[in-house]
Amino acid sequence: MGINYFRRDPRDLKFVLAEHMDLEKILSYEPYKDFSMDDFAMIIDEALKVCREELGPAMQDGDREGVIYSEDGSVTVPASFHNCWKVMAENGWMAVSSKPEFGGQGLPATLGGLLGELFTGANMAFMTYPGLAVGNGRLIEHFGTDEDRDLFVEKMYTGVWGGTMCLTEPDAGSDVGWMRTKAVPDPDSSDPRIYKIEGTKRFITCGEHNLTENIIHLLLARIEGAPLGTKGVSLFIVPKIWVNPDGSLGGPNDVFCGGVEHKMGIHGSPTCTMNFGENGGCRGILLGEPHSGMAKMFQMMNEARMGCGVQALGLAASSYDTARQYAKERIQGPPFTNRKGDRVPIIQHEDVRRALMTLKGGTEAMRAMIGKLFYLIDMAQFDPDETTRKKAGGQVELFTPLVKAYCTDFGYLLTREAIHVLGGVGYCSEFPVEQYARDILISSIWEGTNYIQSLDLVGRKLGLEGGKMFQGWVQEVMTFTGTHKDDADFAPDFKLLFKASQATGDFAMRYMQYFQEQRFQLIPLTSKRFLECFAETLMAQLMLEQGIIAREKLENVKADSADGIFYRGKMQTAKFFCRNILPNVFARHMALQQEDTSAMDIPEQAF
Amino acid sequence: MGINYFRRDPRDLKFVLAEHMDLEKILSYEPYKDFSMDDFAMIIDEALKVCREELGPAMQDGDREGVIYSEDGSVTVPASFHNCWKVMAENGWMAVSSKPEFGGQGLPATLGGLLGELFTGANMAFMTYPGLAVGNGRLIEHFGTDEDRDLFVEKMYTGVWGGTMCLTEPDAGSDVGWMRTKAVPDPDSSDPRIYKIEGTKRFITCGEHNLTENIIHLLLARIEGAPLGTKGVSLFIVPKIWVNPDGSLGGPNDVFCGGVEHKMGIHGSPTCTMNFGENGGCRGILLGEPHSGMAKMFQMMNEARMGCGVQALGLAASSYDTARQYAKERIQGPPFTNRKGDRVPIIQHEDVRRALMTLKGGTEAMRAMIGKLFYLIDMAQFDPDETTRKKAGGQVELFTPLVKAYCTDFGYLLTREAIHVLGGVGYCSEFPVEQYARDILISSIWEGTNYIQSLDLVGRKLGLEGGKMFQGWVQEVMTFTGTHKDDADFAPDFKLLFKASQATGDFAMRYMQYFQEQRFQLIPLTSKRFLECFAETLMAQLMLEQGIIAREKLENVKADSADGIFYRGKMQTAKFFCRNILPNVFARHMALQQEDTSAMDIPEQAF
Repeated sequence: MGINYFRRDPRDLKFVLAEHMDLEKILSYEPYKDFSMDDFAMIIDEALKVCREELGPAMQDGDREGVIYSEDGSVTVPASFHNCWKVMAENGWMAVSSKPEFGGQGLPATLGGLLGELFTGANMAFMTYPGLAVGNGRLIEHFGTDEDRDLFVEKMYTGVWGGTMCLTEPDAGSDVGWMRTKAVPDPDSSDPRIYKIEGTKRFITCGEHNLTENIIHLLLARIEGAPLGTKGVSLFIVPKIWVNPDGSLGGPNDVFCGGVEHKMGIHGSPTCTMNFGENGGCRGILLGEPHSGMAKMFQMMNEARMGCGVQALGLAASSYDTARQYAKERIQGPPFTNRKGDRVPIIQHEDVRRALMTLKGGTEAMRAMIGKLFYLIDMAQFDPDETTRKKAGGQVELFTPLVKAYCTDFGYLLTREAIHVLGGVGYCSEFPVEQYARDILISSIWEGTNYIQSLDLVGRKLGLEGGKMFQGWVQEVMTFTGTHKDDADFAPDFKLLFKASQATGDFAMRYMQYFQEQRFQLIPLTSKRFLECFAETLMAQLMLEQGIIAREKLENVKADSADGIFYRGKMQTAKFFCRNILPNVFARHMALQQEDTSAMDIPEQAF
Repeated sequence: MGINYFRRDPRDLKFVLAEHMDLEKILSYEPYKDFSMDDFAMIIDEALKVCREELGPAMQDGDREGVIYSEDGSVTVPASFHNCWKVMAENGWMAVSSKPEFGGQGLPATLGGLLGELFTGANMAFMTYPGLAVGNGRLIEHFGTDEDRDLFVEKMYTGVWGGTMCLTEPDAGSDVGWMRTKAVPDPDSSDPRIYKIEGTKRFITCGEHNLTENIIHLLLARIEGAPLGTKGVSLFIVPKIWVNPDGSLGGPNDVFCGGVEHKMGIHGSPTCTMNFGENGGCRGILLGEPHSGMAKMFQMMNEARMGCGVQALGLAASSYDTARQYAKERIQGPPFTNRKGDRVPIIQHEDVRRALMTLKGGTEAMRAMIGKLFYLIDMAQFDPDETTRKKAGGQVELFTPLVKAYCTDFGYLLTREAIHVLGGVGYCSEFPVEQYARDILISSIWEGTNYIQSLDLVGRKLGLEGGKMFQGWVQEVMTFTGTHKDDADFAPDFKLLFKASQATGDFAMRYMQYFQEQRFQLIPLTSKRFLECFAETLMAQLMLEQGIIAREKLENVKADSADGIFYRGKMQTAKFFCRNILPNVFARHMALQQEDTSAMDIPEQAF
């Protein structure tokens, strides 16, 4: 086992869960009635223990050892991952928010999402294995027959089997509808749901490994004769080892791993080329109706997209933890404001402080946004009031692309701040910050690139309920800023937030105009920046909500108590976020106002 | 040998050299009178050939093989680096801008700087070896005695010996003045310039390797009894193998490499811990006067800082080259503006186009700024007019921190754009873009972190000639924008540039005010952002100069000729830069206006 660098202080996580979000409300929901905050606090502490003692120490191991591919198609995971798997499985950490009847822990999504930050922050590469197994199981739970559920779901929630999602092909990536993998009804089977599968999938995370005796692939393929494009795609359960109706394992299912990619990061997670039916012997079970695969896969994809945000938060927060610890211990020359003074811990250096504050503010704002998203998921599922459920569901849809794209892009920048705090040491591999930077980058690419997220936002989400979902949020921010515009501490911040919500609203108005005027180019040329404006404005809103809560709480604690320091820190962090990060909105908005099409006007040969 | 991915089109480099900068003027300078643009074009073509055939194919090799450290203190370089070294040395590519009398090529700095982009863009890790040897030799050329020059310089310019700069110690990094390495007059030597050296240096690039028979370390140490801080530091020539007065090699000089770092990138370049005099047998030759070492080292450091910008440009431009090639070849679904259309090369996708334009605009703006800097160096050295020389020299000082810090930070972001153009493939190691991202990051840290650059800018450079150097530049930009404010093509861009120069000027005014009011904190909390505003404004100025030149040239060529396409592309690129990148200035300026001190006001324990 390697060195553990995971050392998250759970105070902010608990603040989001129990002070910022409405915990009473969550605990009033039917499935969560038997829980209390004490339970949650205990669960968080136990999760931290697993992170520190099992996942964390395996993180650098995983990076250095990597996965090993053999010509016989097998993939060997880093040695220490076996124990991580065992501990996670035996203690029920894999499917914390899934239904207890299938082996899940039945925790609120809000808590499950925030726990995810801890696990991925401790060892992102490892967490791809349980993450896919559980996401996969959930799809079978939702769309499978009773038999499918009985055969697969519990085994995937409890770590008996692994799972994958097989979408990408060598010649079909972001344009997944062009996939070629085909399915034909199995002539040898009397069950009409059994198909023969043939095709090659690429970039399949955890496609093959030796952690579990079986791996259940969820695979998209086109049933022969189906229409082209995403509407002709069906979803299949394709076990690596066939599963007999009685649950026992049959023979190998002609699924072969043709190789693994060498990558910038997540070396402990295999990215596989998977060949299905090379020898004509691969069978799959149709999940749901034919040609309905894309929509179903999107449910898992949507969860995975939230998961990307969680990954980014996990690694960014861990890079902050490493940086702040280092900054407290590393002694160097005097700060700028006391240049003739003694050497001090670099946390007293102004630019280091700015970097740490960027890391603190950035991770706390991401955590707030992610906490809010998962809170809305609980609300959308279990709130007794239908209008509340519906509104929450709409906001989940609206905010998901922000969580996926903004957190993953911003998280990458935050890891750089952390590297810079450590200086030359940060570029070396002793400390894990350079690994965080390498690991985190994949989250901006997989599960739909961040550009695709921005198109999802502009093309689908802005128009939810005729635009009312988005407009309602803008209105909410404006009401919030109106209420607090003369705030004793945050007046300048509310002013910035008001302007930011105006700018973000203006983006959306302009998009409507561009659609009407058929100036379509302007939308994809700027949609990533619109997404960023929206996310930063939302995050500033949440940070100011937190700042105000912290101020209230501060009245009842001693200023120098642990809580007092936390709340004072929170107030400063809210200010920092609004005054240093939020202004980026205005640069993007100014760029939008130029309505620049030079990127399309330039002759293609000029590149 | 591995695959070559280096494929720079030299058109823009030639544009900077011969169309944007005043080539006639360079060629009128005494040392360059015998050259012509034809010579330069031939030299560029030959350099490209070396890059494609030697350095480029060794780049991925170097990354995968890395340097190998043995317990006996030896470091083995990647196998293919030996041939690179041989070719570079034999063909005089190492010291292109150094004096011919010592084995240099005597080329203008302008050309030398731009050639550096090619070499580092082909293989950054390899180029650390010749880069240090030559920079090191130049210091001995300038400050050594005739004997020193005879003994060392030519051998370092021509690849016979390697070199290093030994500053950092385990406990003295950015605060280099705290170093502990000590020197005492050698009691066994009659030469008062010979000292015994004892100490440990860390992060010594190319500190040990098997490319050359000898390595000449330039080392900073404190002569016993010298004052603390940078003013008590002296510079020593410390050969790995002692060099006898007749030039022959003596015995080993008690210099031992204690290990190499494992790093995020530049795996082919050893980052060494160097132990000097562990057995009491290390001798060094004092270079120049005692206690004058820091100032001398700064000459090399200054060159190295420019070199960092060149490194960043080289890798960013190479990542652009990889991305544009990939975007032309990779076929994927239809673009946003033709969603029912056929699959097309992704260069026709709007967001890919935006990314490529960011890469193109970013690299061309960096190349313009770097070309300008080296042009000013030629001018400062050789212009017959003293006022011109002085002004150029001042601008070199003013612009150097911009080139170092801005290009290295921005370059890292550009490599991410390139990775995103390639998508999942970009995260994998087959294509070199993820390596560019890993390699480039060190350039923001070494040779003085980018924060240190910003302090150099604010603390030293802004005040040059009582602030006139900076104000003169602001005035120059304002005059430029005044002349062109109604420009038929660029009016909006000049408007943005005018506002950007106002904002940058306002930063400087506020800093004066903060100094006067003793609100010192506000300076280091924002100085990196000021540097970025300054750099982006300067780059926009240069891009608009280029756009106007391109428009003029376009009148005399066919629009669809290679030159026509280049000039049209240049005009669009200038617009893109001003309308998409320059607006970032205003976000930073808005942040400055908040005068936010939350990062310092927050209790330290809140981190």
